[in-house]
Amino acid sequence: MNTLQGYCNYRVPYADSDQMGFVYYGRYLTYFERARNELLRALNFTYKDMEARGLGLPVIEAHVNYHQPACYDDELRISAELSWLKLVRMQVFCQVWRGQDLLADGYTIHAVMNLQSKKATRLPKDLEKLFRLHLESSTSPETAHCAPGKEV
Amino acid sequence: MNTLQGYCNYRVPYADSDQMGFVYYGRYLTYFERARNELLRALNFTYKDMEARGLGLPVIEAHVNYHQPACYDDELRISAELSWLKLVRMQVFCQVWRGQDLLADGYTIHAVMNLQSKKATRLPKDLEKLFRLHLESSTSPETAHCAPGKEV
Amino acid sequence: MNTLQGYCNYRVPYADSDQMGFVYYGRYLTYFERARNELLRALNFTYKDMEARGLGLPVIEAHVNYHQPACYDDELRISAELSWLKLVRMQVFCQVWRGQDLLADGYTIHAVMNLQSKKATRLPKDLEKLFRLHLESSTSPETAHCAPGKEV
Amino acid sequence: MNTLQGYCNYRVPYADSDQMGFVYYGRYLTYFERARNELLRALNFTYKDMEARGLGLPVIEAHVNYHQPACYDDELRISAELSWLKLVRMQVFCQVWRGQDLLADGYTIHAVMNLQSKKATRLPKDLEKLFRLHLESSTSPETAHCAPGKEV
Repeated sequence: MNTLQGYCNYRVPYADSDQMGFVYYGRYLTYFERARNELLRALNFTYKDMEARGLGLPVIEAHVNYHQPACYDDELRISAELSWLKLVRMQVFCQVWRGQDLLADGYTIHAVMNLQSKKATRLPKDLEKLFRLHLESSTSPETAHCAPGKEV
Repeated sequence: MNTLQGYCNYRVPYADSDQMGFVYYGRYLTYFERARNELLRALNFTYKDMEARGLGLPVIEAHVNYHQPACYDDELRISAELSWLKLVRMQVFCQVWRGQDLLADGYTIHAVMNLQSKKATRLPKDLEKLFRLHLESSTSPETAHCAPGKEV
Repeated sequence: MNTLQGYCNYRVPYADSDQMGFVYYGRYLTYFERARNELLRALNFTYKDMEARGLGLPVIEAHVNYHQPACYDDELRISAELSWLKLVRMQVFCQVWRGQDLLADGYTIHAVMNLQSKKATRLPKDLEKLFRLHLESSTSPETAHCAPGKEV
Repeated sequence: MNTLQGYCNYRVPYADSDQMGFVYYGRYLTYFERARNELLRALNFTYKDMEARGLGLPVIEAHVNYHQPACYDDELRISAELSWLKLVRMQVFCQVWRGQDLLADGYTIHAVMNLQSKKATRLPKDLEKLFRLHLESSTSPETAHCAPGKEV
């Protein structure tokens, strides 16, 4: 069974709209973050725990494809799943859905950082194991991506 | 001469607009912050210096009056001046102008906080003196407010 | 029975935090907006419906009291209720809770605006009736405010 | 002479910082927007003019590479230049500099949209000509990118 996906529901506030009547393109990176937070929580872990251990996951690359505009008061479903994991890097793939419509997708690549020294570091063994276990138990991305809003 | 006013110019990005075609009401609190930063800088001091000394000025009360909407691509002028100073509190009065039009005004009240302990503390003597000197040298608020965009 | 309160739950994203480790003070105005949206929805109406009828409720005054800081990953509960209603104005009172702790409260005052002409207008009779009915059926504010997170 | 680059200076407010002490990764898309606005203005045109003609340039793809973190109170210089132009699409390349340090770069791809119908449309001849003229007069990207903050 695949528990690798984190997701959350999100109601679009007026604050996220712009004068084109769409959600401003920069807000999607916060949407992605919300789903990443839930991805860690789905692993019985939180990013807050991670910080408490002196580790951070700053974003070193971000990409968004905008397929259809999200709008004010839409109820969105945002998902995140781990794409790959290396010693000091990982990629998370995210999607933003409104019902059966995929509005946007993209990814973020994260470095592992020591919060004290602000230097790159290796993921601790226990976290690496946790992440890797889930990566391996994951269904193929193709399958996973077909199932918006399905609690897989 | 009154050097108590901080101000900055600010071009409104699309990001600040909402689908009513106006600047979203919450953004003005960031506008106020920008002018407050310049107020400290006008005193040959910065909020960054303050943090380096272990002190913060968290907002404990904020008020905004919206007179006319700001819009995308407007060139705004935002000003901030100290209204009063107590042992552990201070109030800053802010205004947002577009040319001769006052679009919004309001204030923030700040506590002085020890960043380590996150507890309220007294403003150090040297800073209190600096702020108080400027408060006293200030022209009356009435006069100051009549002079948008004038480098006083 | 009082159905006058709108509320929503909200998980604080990293995007809302600032380098003091608290939620940035300007974000609370978006929090208030989220609860206001739910207040209208609780009246079987939405702000989106209102816009479809050519009406808007721009904010003309906003006030926030910050009691305790909200932090990253906190699960907040935000509530909104109508304080008073006049021909062309209304006030909404909002609160931000984390469990039993009141983190912030405040209010917004709204004008009723014709979206086409961008001029002030009167609230249509049916909406005024709807709002007034709920105002009158409301328990006293004192009582209501004692019940954070209680679905009244 | 190449006037194809738009740029602006930007002082980072506290609002843009997050609790890692860095500028939150999503804000860079607003930074890119600010420079894009100036790119159009450098062509004696504004995005506001474009909207007045019923045209919009919604983003359909965005990419950011984060090289070094920007921080609160940093004075940034943000640049934008046209990478390519097709009948209904264009790409803009952006960079964020602090002094001689390139903090981030990336691009956005835009569709040309009829604001009324919300459908893709062709860029009007006069605008296409304006953009193309500047593309052709542009120095090679390699040269341009070496010149942060230089008014080329």
